[in-house]
Amino acid sequence: MELTPGTLLKTINNPADLKKLSREQLHQVCDELRQYIVDVVSVNGGHFGASLGVVELSVALHYVYNTPYDQLVWDVGHQAYGHKILTGRRDIFPTNRKYKGISGFPKRSESEYDTFGVGHSSTSISAALGMAMAAKYKGENRKSIAVIGDGAMTAGLAFEAMNHAGVADADMLVILNDNCMSIDPNVGALKEYLTDITTSQTYNKVKDEVWNLLGKLPVGKKFSRNMAHKLTEGVKGMVNSRANLFESLKMRYFGPIDGHNITKLVDTLQDLKNIPGPKLLHIITVKGKGYDLAEKDQTLWHAPGLFDKVTGVIQKKKYDLPQPMKYQDVFGYTMIELAEKNEKIFGITPAMPSGSSLKYMMEKMPHRAFDVGIAEQHAVTVSAGMATQGMKVFCNIYSSFMQRAYDMVVHDVAIQKLPVVFCLDRAGLVGEDGPTHHGCYDIAYMRCIPNMVVFAPMNERELRNIMYTAQLDTMQIPIAIRYPRGEGVIAELQKDTMAEKYPFEEIEIGKGRKLKDGQDIAILSFGHPGNFAATAIRDVKTEGINPAHYDIRFAKPLDEALLHEVFKTYSKIITVEDGTVVGGFGSAVLEFMNEHGYKAEVKILGIPDRLVEHGSPKQLYDEIGIDANGIAVALREMAKVSVNDLIKA
Amino acid sequence: MELTPGTLLKTINNPADLKKLSREQLHQVCDELRQYIVDVVSVNGGHFGASLGVVELSVALHYVYNTPYDQLVWDVGHQAYGHKILTGRRDIFPTNRKYKGISGFPKRSESEYDTFGVGHSSTSISAALGMAMAAKYKGENRKSIAVIGDGAMTAGLAFEAMNHAGVADADMLVILNDNCMSIDPNVGALKEYLTDITTSQTYNKVKDEVWNLLGKLPVGKKFSRNMAHKLTEGVKGMVNSRANLFESLKMRYFGPIDGHNITKLVDTLQDLKNIPGPKLLHIITVKGKGYDLAEKDQTLWHAPGLFDKVTGVIQKKKYDLPQPMKYQDVFGYTMIELAEKNEKIFGITPAMPSGSSLKYMMEKMPHRAFDVGIAEQHAVTVSAGMATQGMKVFCNIYSSFMQRAYDMVVHDVAIQKLPVVFCLDRAGLVGEDGPTHHGCYDIAYMRCIPNMVVFAPMNERELRNIMYTAQLDTMQIPIAIRYPRGEGVIAELQKDTMAEKYPFEEIEIGKGRKLKDGQDIAILSFGHPGNFAATAIRDVKTEGINPAHYDIRFAKPLDEALLHEVFKTYSKIITVEDGTVVGGFGSAVLEFMNEHGYKAEVKILGIPDRLVEHGSPKQLYDEIGIDANGIAVALREMAKVSVNDLIKA
Repeated sequence: MELTPGTLLKTINNPADLKKLSREQLHQVCDELRQYIVDVVSVNGGHFGASLGVVELSVALHYVYNTPYDQLVWDVGHQAYGHKILTGRRDIFPTNRKYKGISGFPKRSESEYDTFGVGHSSTSISAALGMAMAAKYKGENRKSIAVIGDGAMTAGLAFEAMNHAGVADADMLVILNDNCMSIDPNVGALKEYLTDITTSQTYNKVKDEVWNLLGKLPVGKKFSRNMAHKLTEGVKGMVNSRANLFESLKMRYFGPIDGHNITKLVDTLQDLKNIPGPKLLHIITVKGKGYDLAEKDQTLWHAPGLFDKVTGVIQKKKYDLPQPMKYQDVFGYTMIELAEKNEKIFGITPAMPSGSSLKYMMEKMPHRAFDVGIAEQHAVTVSAGMATQGMKVFCNIYSSFMQRAYDMVVHDVAIQKLPVVFCLDRAGLVGEDGPTHHGCYDIAYMRCIPNMVVFAPMNERELRNIMYTAQLDTMQIPIAIRYPRGEGVIAELQKDTMAEKYPFEEIEIGKGRKLKDGQDIAILSFGHPGNFAATAIRDVKTEGINPAHYDIRFAKPLDEALLHEVFKTYSKIITVEDGTVVGGFGSAVLEFMNEHGYKAEVKILGIPDRLVEHGSPKQLYDEIGIDANGIAVALREMAKVSVNDLIKA
Repeated sequence: MELTPGTLLKTINNPADLKKLSREQLHQVCDELRQYIVDVVSVNGGHFGASLGVVELSVALHYVYNTPYDQLVWDVGHQAYGHKILTGRRDIFPTNRKYKGISGFPKRSESEYDTFGVGHSSTSISAALGMAMAAKYKGENRKSIAVIGDGAMTAGLAFEAMNHAGVADADMLVILNDNCMSIDPNVGALKEYLTDITTSQTYNKVKDEVWNLLGKLPVGKKFSRNMAHKLTEGVKGMVNSRANLFESLKMRYFGPIDGHNITKLVDTLQDLKNIPGPKLLHIITVKGKGYDLAEKDQTLWHAPGLFDKVTGVIQKKKYDLPQPMKYQDVFGYTMIELAEKNEKIFGITPAMPSGSSLKYMMEKMPHRAFDVGIAEQHAVTVSAGMATQGMKVFCNIYSSFMQRAYDMVVHDVAIQKLPVVFCLDRAGLVGEDGPTHHGCYDIAYMRCIPNMVVFAPMNERELRNIMYTAQLDTMQIPIAIRYPRGEGVIAELQKDTMAEKYPFEEIEIGKGRKLKDGQDIAILSFGHPGNFAATAIRDVKTEGINPAHYDIRFAKPLDEALLHEVFKTYSKIITVEDGTVVGGFGSAVLEFMNEHGYKAEVKILGIPDRLVEHGSPKQLYDEIGIDANGIAVALREMAKVSVNDLIKA
């Protein structure tokens, strides 16, 4: 399909071109920008609703501000497609999120207009404040602008940044892009507050009315001018300096204004440019704006995959045979199955009910499953609090987002030995979202914590069984269960029959599985990549290579009995994991070997100690050599050495 | 010295005894409790000012609430001495913070009254909310109370928790203990806000006045009853529902009240007990209350060490010879020395200006060194923002607190390769503060991050040189510099002469040091414990054991050339580090060995994979066997095996 930008958009190679246009022409630019995003995303995939929601804002910002001298920081960054198209990446935008193509998020190495790399939420105010403080120190009249969503505003980092910004006396504008959504609808008290101040019944109208009425105060004998003045000043004092959450934190508050009115936006930003100090502009936008279906089902259209832009039909792959369920759905439905039997079970997710599939339980058992908003830290500590009361809390957080709650895992859960169940979704390479979202480090950062169990299921059945095990009363320490994004491997395991066909079996903590015996070489795999290993083993069979295969299951505690068997039987070992090779599962195996004085040749396959960029999981696993092919290569190399050894001997 | 509690306090073995007393008697209980804390802390050491500040609150809470059925959560916990004394630990309170004695913080394993273990700040609202949600679910009329300081309130976790609490409809009371202090004076917009609403010029007085004046509105022709009503309701609407930061977040706000008025506290808590839902009581206290000197210099008296309770003279150890400086002071003064030459240098600390000694730079260069409040996440990301503008930011965070900012280190710094300098103070075992504060995990959790340099200085000179190296323009990736609490080892290196006597020398990144050659055995040490190793080497010399000693300096990147030399020369290796043995420096050495096919006997000495409790650093390092004695034991064992090997061969 040909992807042709509109006549004006075609002329905009950078913000300088945009600035040449008249204000009236900006309407057309917005239309064309929106259309180009629809055109490209519909055939290429990617995030959708968020960028449509900030088309006008993107145009207005680059029209008004002197980017890249002025520093524009996008929070999260999946809404920055318009920004990318306007800043020299229009023609390569169709490579968005593709292997070796441009990133789906702002990225410093990609463009000088991308002032701060993102992916995770709520970093923009801190980053922009740092930029503003540096500009102030250097005496530069450089503006810093952070664009942050109302969902991202609930994370503690944003609050910490505002607490500092309010007293830092640096020239910074925070634009609160309020669309009432994270990926799922935004939750929490702040959301209700924002809704309050944007609905006509309340803040603004009342403020206007009160001002109005104060002006009409009938001054006379009973009510002196002095009293009237006092009243007016008193009310003003209350309203102006503290009536607003943001002004409480010393951020001057402006708005709310319509974030789709390009003229109003340009005017307002022009004005704000000349107001010094920390300030916040509250704009109201609609996620998916301009694409009807996306406006109506914002969660579905957050990142819909490929779709027919005319009919709005989202492409679904068709299969002749039933496909394996996603690990996410196995988690989601198993939660309900377990919770129906064990009333102590709770589910917690920080803003990922759809992504994690906890939504099924939230719908069915709304008093036992909660979305706490973008608040990973709180998600962990509130789970710990519940655990002190005997609750069995499954706290589901993506592997890379769990980095946000690391101290809470250590300090609130592990040190106290509270049996919270952490489900680390999106472990391993996530694909198109790239390095900010890859779940590379959790094996290493969890394994070093005392009292922590670290498990990875090789398949859906293992996931079900470990979830069952984790909620038993006998489980009295925390466990981290890590599994990848996407489909498992057991096509027969399906939602409606899994309870019956795959009844729960307890897994002994620290017990691995021998999958097959072999000669010379043993593969020790951890989690889902064990399937790649199994394929590799089949692939090399005809070549006379016949390795043993162990699914070690627990990176901690290791199955020492099984490992003694391995090291007594095999002298050549390949470990396989979808986590970093630094301090991960392979290192755990080395530590065991060293402690027990085993000498073996060990090849550690995992995510290398460098950033792995974006692309399809298949491309990336191929690149780093831990797919079936990569494992087969490692097997052949090791086998060759074995033969050489034999010849030598 | 005899430590005798007062006549009433002597009778209180648990809160039930307290409840038997009349309200009038509570004054005496408070006096005696305060006195007992002064008596014990003056001869035993420990935190001081914080517990004195909440004497009345501690008494009131246990008098009014049905603890431990009602759940009382102390934030941070160093203010919980009164709570401990009232809940069965009066007579063992003199063992506070001593090896094998009671913990200086609430600890679940110590008492059923300690509902949630603490040490780090800002966890209490989340924990108490989790408890309240569980109680609600179980249909229990159990109350949950979180006591949190104004300093702790600035951390993002507290905000995340309030955002959830406001909509969770659970029965919880947050007591905001406002004393305007963290360890150092509290900073930020929230602090200014709290000061505003507690000073007479503002919120409360104005609110009262406005209410008053509204009541006097002269209704007549020009100003109808309807208009007056509208005005009153309008103002009410603005003031009641949004005039207050906390009420913006749907927490009902009460206060502020005097936190040292025991009668008022008891009355207020009695009332609040019957008000359902999330609510916040703002109390004003004075840190160090009742001990004059402590009230006047709150930072000094946060944890003053031993002192004469009558004269207030704080004991200082006297030495005949000059003692080595603390690593902290070497950091603090070296910052100034470097910043005077390099105008790009900034310093950032989250609420630890005194502890880290960044205060010296803050005093001398207030525009270049900042305390951002208890906000580790923001501290890292604002540093990253500054780094994008070419600034060289030294971000000083204690090792265990850095766990709070782990995602920011990964996502905002390392992925972007921004050359932020992390100074991880309090690395290794910190001593009396115990497991929440030990810096055990940073080597493991930092080493697994790509682009990250991990360095530990063996002495003060090394610290100075790596700080010098880190601020050079050639340093284009982030570095974590970890060093312990307390004194270094070079007595000759002193503040006034260090610049002259120890001029800066650049350290090549990834370059270790050979300290001495040896036979058979090589010790590879990382950081300060290298000094323990050096002592051990001297100690075993007469026994004919003569190990080599290498100060590896960089856990990442490893000095591969040096390690090749080591493994080609020695077949018996001892690694020494003051971090966990799981995934730490020792594991890095194993990974190197494995990759290069070296076979050697390796003994990894470090912090074991279990919680190490509190005690003096000396006691703890002795317990885990990485002091000079422990290393000597390991050397002897290894040497014995060598001899046996020889005999066998």
